[in-house]
Amino acid sequence: MPNVFVKVPEPTLRRLPWYLAYAKLARQQGETHLSSTQIAQKIGIDASQVAKDFSFVTVSGKTRVGYEIDELITTLEQFLGFTNCHKAFLFGAGSLGSSLLHDNGLTQYGLEVVAAFDIKVELVGTQINRIPIQHLDRFMEIQAQTGVQIGILTVPVNQAQEVADIMIAGGIKAIWNFTPFRIRVPEDIVVQNTSLYAHLAVMFNRLRGLLEEEKE
Amino acid sequence: MPNVFVKVPEPTLRRLPWYLAYAKLARQQGETHLSSTQIAQKIGIDASQVAKDFSFVTVSGKTRVGYEIDELITTLEQFLGFTNCHKAFLFGAGSLGSSLLHDNGLTQYGLEVVAAFDIKVELVGTQINRIPIQHLDRFMEIQAQTGVQIGILTVPVNQAQEVADIMIAGGIKAIWNFTPFRIRVPEDIVVQNTSLYAHLAVMFNRLRGLLEEEKE
Repeated sequence: MPNVFVKVPEPTLRRLPWYLAYAKLARQQGETHLSSTQIAQKIGIDASQVAKDFSFVTVSGKTRVGYEIDELITTLEQFLGFTNCHKAFLFGAGSLGSSLLHDNGLTQYGLEVVAAFDIKVELVGTQINRIPIQHLDRFMEIQAQTGVQIGILTVPVNQAQEVADIMIAGGIKAIWNFTPFRIRVPEDIVVQNTSLYAHLAVMFNRLRGLLEEEKE
Repeated sequence: MPNVFVKVPEPTLRRLPWYLAYAKLARQQGETHLSSTQIAQKIGIDASQVAKDFSFVTVSGKTRVGYEIDELITTLEQFLGFTNCHKAFLFGAGSLGSSLLHDNGLTQYGLEVVAAFDIKVELVGTQINRIPIQHLDRFMEIQAQTGVQIGILTVPVNQAQEVADIMIAGGIKAIWNFTPFRIRVPEDIVVQNTSLYAHLAVMFNRLRGLLEEEKE
């Protein structure tokens, strides 16, 4: 298989992990094959959408029996990058940052945090979940030694842009931004925004809408 | 002001916290007024989009000087629900669940986790960050006493649907789903999906694209 890189649409990349999660569950329940129609029904997504999403992944299903479930899981995991080990640094070991350091689940999905950086003297030299916390001043040196390209940004809002600039200057290529601040970066830097608080705002608004409706 | 509930489009609800974060930063830096043009420039969003987003929020700007910054911040925080205290339960105090219990940041955005539920005997009766962990069997009883309507779902994939069903049967109205499983719920239940792993998949794919480009 030639290693041709395909830029997959973001909605597809967000749905594929759902199919993967469902396939793993079906395997646990003893299934050996899975069709895109089955997945579509169980997940509540249009079957043609599922088929379209799968068209980005090189996985071959057979008419009637569908995909061989082990192959489907392995292919999806590889395609999504979950089987590769991507080393990452975390910037800002405060409340949210240290809580992410506690989450061992990330490793299972291919992200291994190898060091955290902070400027608080009382944190520097300590460890969280066996991950060492270093002073931010040492980032460039440690990056040069390790070549880590992914940085998780969990600093306070007022430091988000400054630290993002430092990360990029030091060789970070992809920033997973957990701050509610919209950082500006050069075109050749990948930014993935995951603002828990924005998701909270959506949930609060929808819940309020629901409760108002019930009142009527 | 009549309390008319407006269903705000999700993209707007996701952008408003960016404006809020920027306004707070500008206030720290000594600004007293802020125009939507300024916000647009700093955040890299079209000015007409910012103005449109603000049209959902009852905030009055003056020509030339823009919004009074304190009023803007207070109005946005209230509008987004961050100033109300929303009590929540967490379901599944494993790796991701316990890491969320460590995050005090959520409280600042209006979400207070008052109890966690799990089925592991060794966890029941313990506390994480002063939040008590109870056996899932006690959920209905505790929900009836407290009337909590928000549930955070952080159980393993193979228990996601079952626990979601229990949550709903017990009176939970909004589910913040952190599992990669797409749960099925009745129409009158709010679901907010926050799959960290789906975001990882997007980031890995984009990073890979970038590195392939650089090779060429």
